Amino acid sequence: MTTIKEVAKLAGVSVATVSRALNNSGYVSEEARKKVESAVKELNFYPNEVARSLYQKKSKLIGLLLPDIANPFFPLIAKGVEDGVNQRGYSLLLGNVEDDLEKEKDYLKIFAQNNIAGVISAVQGDIKDLQNMPFVLLDRVESDQNFSVHSDDYTGGMMAAEAIVSRDPKEIVIMVGPKEVPSSAARLAGNQKVLKDHQLDYQIFQTSSFKFELAEQTAEQFFDTYPNVDSVIASNDVYAIAVMKEALKRGRRIPEDVQIIGYDDMPFSRMMYPGLATIAQPAYEIGYRGAKLLCDILEKGFVEVSRIQLPVILKIRESVRKKDEDE
Amino acid sequence: MTTIKEVAKLAGVSVATVSRALNNSGYVSEEARKKVESAVKELNFYPNEVARSLYQKKSKLIGLLLPDIANPFFPLIAKGVEDGVNQRGYSLLLGNVEDDLEKEKDYLKIFAQNNIAGVISAVQGDIKDLQNMPFVLLDRVESDQNFSVHSDDYTGGMMAAEAIVSRDPKEIVIMVGPKEVPSSAARLAGNQKVLKDHQLDYQIFQTSSFKFELAEQTAEQFFDTYPNVDSVIASNDVYAIAVMKEALKRGRRIPEDVQIIGYDDMPFSRMMYPGLATIAQPAYEIGYRGAKLLCDILEKGFVEVSRIQLPVILKIRESVRKKDEDE
Repeated sequence: MTTIKEVAKLAGVSVATVSRALNNSGYVSEEARKKVESAVKELNFYPNEVARSLYQKKSKLIGLLLPDIANPFFPLIAKGVEDGVNQRGYSLLLGNVEDDLEKEKDYLKIFAQNNIAGVISAVQGDIKDLQNMPFVLLDRVESDQNFSVHSDDYTGGMMAAEAIVSRDPKEIVIMVGPKEVPSSAARLAGNQKVLKDHQLDYQIFQTSSFKFELAEQTAEQFFDTYPNVDSVIASNDVYAIAVMKEALKRGRRIPEDVQIIGYDDMPFSRMMYPGLATIAQPAYEIGYRGAKLLCDILEKGFVEVSRIQLPVILKIRESVRKKDEDE
Repeated sequence: MTTIKEVAKLAGVSVATVSRALNNSGYVSEEARKKVESAVKELNFYPNEVARSLYQKKSKLIGLLLPDIANPFFPLIAKGVEDGVNQRGYSLLLGNVEDDLEKEKDYLKIFAQNNIAGVISAVQGDIKDLQNMPFVLLDRVESDQNFSVHSDDYTGGMMAAEAIVSRDPKEIVIMVGPKEVPSSAARLAGNQKVLKDHQLDYQIFQTSSFKFELAEQTAEQFFDTYPNVDSVIASNDVYAIAVMKEALKRGRRIPEDVQIIGYDDMPFSRMMYPGLATIAQPAYEIGYRGAKLLCDILEKGFVEVSRIQLPVILKIRESVRKKDEDE
């Protein structure tokens, strides 16, 4: 291994000067810095990222914050982010936050200690702690945040409601995602716009979480609260699948007695029987585009404000009834 | 920020000496090294992991290699690994290999460049490339590898076969996982032991992958090859769910016409309707114990050979028939 002494010798400067140049601290003349840099290059003194990182004050690591890796939507996002950052020579430090504010803070500390170059966050928490580093938000939009990638939740909410409206609904219940999640509000607004336009009544069932572990008990509460529901607009696919199972357990046929539309289009949704109708979010694409955006920010230093909105797609499957002939 | 010069001043040595001590290169007297170390501590010169890593030649990063993050079994393993390493002050560098040998090599290169302390791998590839760093294998066992955590595949295979044997099987087909995966062979051996003991005939359907994307077409081929199958021992839960859907699509009732047992117990398996009977692997525990083992190796330097085998649990759900009364 090349030592700092060899670098100093070749550069014709003292070890202390090399140290100052590498640490970017203290005075180093421009001439000496150039000598050090060319010696460093010639001797290949930075064979590894750690040394390079110390030199440049930034590593080739990007921190990824996910809310719940057990929800199959997020591994797809992670896959997109990973492919995106790898292509640009960065690697991912994983942070699985699990709706835990303390855990999120711990990860940000760890990220800082590792001199990460930037953060990609799909977590719905406070973003104040992120303000001192380059970051991109995924799956949400904030008016005070310039860089984000999300899908079109309002249109998605409209699509889901339209799919139900055109399929002879009798008692509609909207299962709404957690209040603190901006995308839940946007989807609800889209739902309501369509239902209002059609002058249809509906009920709202508020959930407090997207967490996998709570899906089954939430589905039970849902049917206890609305036993006569016949059309469900669910908050996401995990909860939609739990609602489907609970309906079938209660002896109700899908879609004849209860029709359901989800949100996300997880890989499993098409493997259900009946297959789950849903609004497909481009999860991989959200991750990939977010990675690309962050790398642009890191490499170009300045990027125009980018709030990238990706389109969603309606996936009609057997969990909703046949469309009314007159529509 | 503290500079190397301040450290040198407090330690009463030259900057070059501090550099040598920090880089662990060249001669530094024991006395000088102690002075540098206490100055470093006093001035808190290593506020970040990168500097610390350069000093100790190792970072607080652990590389995690996963075969396919879209298979819900692996996010659970990742969650266990993450909790385990976080508790000991390490963080995870994510490597999602996707059955791609080149990608695996690229990740190992990235890991090395980041001075990772060690690797945890759930990938079924060659382990030669890992030999020069501390590593723990998950979900498999190798006779020449001293540190691994896996579950008891042979007993799991026996349990799955026994569950079928005691439920009036007429035509049994074993769907076997990829040949290169050691756990597939162990499960098959367990299946065969039980079927032989009961003198029952069976067919074997060989799959080439555990990949999510191939599950549905594999399930089609499966029924095309064995149209009269009435009892399926599936290679894993993802493939079992695809088989269930294909059976229902072909108008066969579950479990009356076709009964199915899976392997893994993914979170989704219990949310199916009918619920998928399966062999539960402790995915989170496998990850967590693997993380603990690697941290022990890193911190203690020497750990006794540990091939940790965790028990599996039979989960009977509605995808298999009621047990024979006479069993």
